[in-house]
Amino acid sequence: MQPPIRVTIWNEFVHERQNAAVAEIYPRGIHAALAEGLGGNTDFATRTATLDEPEQGLPPEVLDATDVLLWWGHAAHDAVLDETAARVQQRVLAGMGLIVLHSGHFSKVFKRLMGTSCALCWREAGERERVWVVNPGHPIAAGLGACIEIGQSEMYGEPFGIPAPDELVFVSWFQGGEVFRSGATWTRGSGRVFYFSPGHEVYPIYHHPEVLRVIANGIRWARPQGAAADTPRHVPAEQARERVEPRGGSVAHPGQGA
Amino acid sequence: MQPPIRVTIWNEFVHERQNAAVAEIYPRGIHAALAEGLGGNTDFATRTATLDEPEQGLPPEVLDATDVLLWWGHAAHDAVLDETAARVQQRVLAGMGLIVLHSGHFSKVFKRLMGTSCALCWREAGERERVWVVNPGHPIAAGLGACIEIGQSEMYGEPFGIPAPDELVFVSWFQGGEVFRSGATWTRGSGRVFYFSPGHEVYPIYHHPEVLRVIANGIRWARPQGAAADTPRHVPAEQARERVEPRGGSVAHPGQGA
Amino acid sequence: MQPPIRVTIWNEFVHERQNAAVAEIYPRGIHAALAEGLGGNTDFATRTATLDEPEQGLPPEVLDATDVLLWWGHAAHDAVLDETAARVQQRVLAGMGLIVLHSGHFSKVFKRLMGTSCALCWREAGERERVWVVNPGHPIAAGLGACIEIGQSEMYGEPFGIPAPDELVFVSWFQGGEVFRSGATWTRGSGRVFYFSPGHEVYPIYHHPEVLRVIANGIRWARPQGAAADTPRHVPAEQARERVEPRGGSVAHPGQGA
Amino acid sequence: MQPPIRVTIWNEFVHERQNAAVAEIYPRGIHAALAEGLGGNTDFATRTATLDEPEQGLPPEVLDATDVLLWWGHAAHDAVLDETAARVQQRVLAGMGLIVLHSGHFSKVFKRLMGTSCALCWREAGERERVWVVNPGHPIAAGLGACIEIGQSEMYGEPFGIPAPDELVFVSWFQGGEVFRSGATWTRGSGRVFYFSPGHEVYPIYHHPEVLRVIANGIRWARPQGAAADTPRHVPAEQARERVEPRGGSVAHPGQGA
Repeated sequence: MQPPIRVTIWNEFVHERQNAAVAEIYPRGIHAALAEGLGGNTDFATRTATLDEPEQGLPPEVLDATDVLLWWGHAAHDAVLDETAARVQQRVLAGMGLIVLHSGHFSKVFKRLMGTSCALCWREAGERERVWVVNPGHPIAAGLGACIEIGQSEMYGEPFGIPAPDELVFVSWFQGGEVFRSGATWTRGSGRVFYFSPGHEVYPIYHHPEVLRVIANGIRWARPQGAAADTPRHVPAEQARERVEPRGGSVAHPGQGA
Repeated sequence: MQPPIRVTIWNEFVHERQNAAVAEIYPRGIHAALAEGLGGNTDFATRTATLDEPEQGLPPEVLDATDVLLWWGHAAHDAVLDETAARVQQRVLAGMGLIVLHSGHFSKVFKRLMGTSCALCWREAGERERVWVVNPGHPIAAGLGACIEIGQSEMYGEPFGIPAPDELVFVSWFQGGEVFRSGATWTRGSGRVFYFSPGHEVYPIYHHPEVLRVIANGIRWARPQGAAADTPRHVPAEQARERVEPRGGSVAHPGQGA
Repeated sequence: MQPPIRVTIWNEFVHERQNAAVAEIYPRGIHAALAEGLGGNTDFATRTATLDEPEQGLPPEVLDATDVLLWWGHAAHDAVLDETAARVQQRVLAGMGLIVLHSGHFSKVFKRLMGTSCALCWREAGERERVWVVNPGHPIAAGLGACIEIGQSEMYGEPFGIPAPDELVFVSWFQGGEVFRSGATWTRGSGRVFYFSPGHEVYPIYHHPEVLRVIANGIRWARPQGAAADTPRHVPAEQARERVEPRGGSVAHPGQGA
Repeated sequence: MQPPIRVTIWNEFVHERQNAAVAEIYPRGIHAALAEGLGGNTDFATRTATLDEPEQGLPPEVLDATDVLLWWGHAAHDAVLDETAARVQQRVLAGMGLIVLHSGHFSKVFKRLMGTSCALCWREAGERERVWVVNPGHPIAAGLGACIEIGQSEMYGEPFGIPAPDELVFVSWFQGGEVFRSGATWTRGSGRVFYFSPGHEVYPIYHHPEVLRVIANGIRWARPQGAAADTPRHVPAEQARERVEPRGGSVAHPGQGA
């Protein structure tokens, strides 16, 4: 039997404390709502973390004990220290799964891992969104029907400034006329990354059972799979697997890298 | 008739001035050798730039007038300012092509665009490398035979800490027993990126006609193709293409992003 | 200066001769309308071919003289001989570009090259389609705005039974609530394949200037780029590039393949 | 607890009965050797099937009860009926995993699913092969070191006529100077496909513990994940999720497809 998946739900936890509409929907914060909503998944061992905690909630010992990290941020992307973002990035490259939710598309963590603008079009009008499954065989879509209907959502529209996803799982339709690649995956180093766009905080999207199912599926999909491999390594000629007689000049010095 | 491709060859220009073996092979610098070696391509308008120039050789007006940038760095990656690397990254996202050569795998520019470690294994023993074409239909492989033979090369070995390439063009065999994904492409934003590993500075690899052909092919492949698209954009409800009646709360503020 | 791109527009040419609504829009056939609509592209040398011609319009000498083939079929997919489909497939693998239009998703040629069902959802109700550019830097999207508005279109919906595209260029929004990956590319062997879904024959979609621009862009993108490489090849031990002493048993026989 | 993975190992079973060298290594056939070698994986429920059995060993009821199919063929590719190959292809599209071994690259099943030539270069000289892990985080590489050493192997060389893999896991080095993409994955429909090249029948490669580990990892990776989705579906206007008033002509007829 596999050990439980150690899930850490990180939230900047700002709008829930500043905006009455948000507080009504998520009185104890989006992180708490997600933890509760995912509570039925007995294969998860879940904790939460927030920006105002020591080391922004993500000290090395927490990251080292995390298999999959959920990231929710919106108003306070700039408050996340470069050092925190770098630590998360390194941990992903070493194998930790990362699920980036909604406005997390503009987080330092996601932008560092993608290398692109991560920009998009947007409109906050409470319109209908329909999240279509374009990859029915993908484990993240397991148990869903043809699409998820979301009564009120924020429009996120193309072009979305991401690298071509390794796998595209969902594409959304919006009432106002736009489309969006709303569920996409990438592998970075040995870590799996899943971006899922539904989730604007003024609508009760994280109470939607099918949205919670997608996130649970994403957690299972993103758990570490193989080994980490990000250390540059010098292989001296005498350790080569086939015999090599060194010849020619040299610029290398110990510790200098390739 | 198409206008010439504006090529800028950037070089940190360090080892050629410090190491006698390198100076003998590239007396005026790798940038000058590449400019000369590519000189027969009459569809290129080529300039060079080096780290010791004002604004590290890459002020905005140079980047704005560059269709394809070649990057050679090795000893001085850390001397490239974050600001310079960020400027190059933004220009790539906006459509400029980028060709990263050999030890440039560890440059700030490449690591920012990839989001990964870009680490690899290496050995400096002057061994044979054979660069196999795995994608004969790709324009970067045009005019080559089954492989390029390089008599003396630095070994670069797997695992190479890159995101899965959009296209894999070359895979190298090394005498000492390793393999390496030696030619690979990615699109980032609207810009095309080509990494090509042969080129260690203590061997005369940039005088090799087939290596120069690959670089010339790469330049043509990487020239800007479409439009830039990296600006986040708010689409107010009254500008939606289908009629939308706004309903529900709001957290958005002008200029805040999605 | 590059030689002209030799374009062959193939059409089953059935509905235009059987259905009055179609005949009114395309009186001389969709192939003739496309040839005329693409006529302003002076870098193309265009011919047409139809199913009722000898060898179904695609004898080897026509395929050998074709750089990019456009495929339009709908009612007569089954009438295309396996032999014809195999010939087209081989020519694509050898480097010919292929542009598959609308209902061509279910053609033998496309299904053979994809290896999948190529199935989709559909509705013929003359609803609005909006073709969004998700990849603004791609040459097939050059010269377009954010999207193409099509007043009347057939809905094609997900899941679309294709392999993950190498590049996704367009995603469509439909009035009735669906989305569709409406412009996608693949490389197969040395040939480039572009599928573009707008084009139902009871609406004048191939008279739409932006649709014609996409097809023209697609033709330029799909022109052959490198070399063909589809021949299995035995490399005897005495021809190996590194010395090998054969040892061990054998099951190979001349001509048997690997 | 998950149910066992139902594995069917299919073998043409020809060379083991005709060639003394092969018979010595695999006296009861490669299928039996694989079944035995995989026997320690208690999460598998394994059966074997061979070409000379009724319906070529793969009647619908066997395929329907198979989660992952292993395919070994070499001398008798042409003896596999098109009908058998089509049945396997359909079952893969519906979600069954498929692991194609060594000379299976030229099987009807693999060529149908890939749509390409699947050709390669080859040499039967019993030379050394070193299978490098290029994707250490991939579950198929779990538990391996940097590479697998195979003392005697058949050379398979590039260019390999496959579509760009969704994921590249292994690249092989050969003593005679070639490289090969020796472990690669694709998704086709809802099914996962893994090609793994080591395994020539005149060498005892399927007795190698790390080769068996790769195959076991591949089986776990390839088990069905989500739902099947390959049925074209008409969505009448009155069933559209958003209101649509049909307008315009029609060419559709019941059962005709899109």
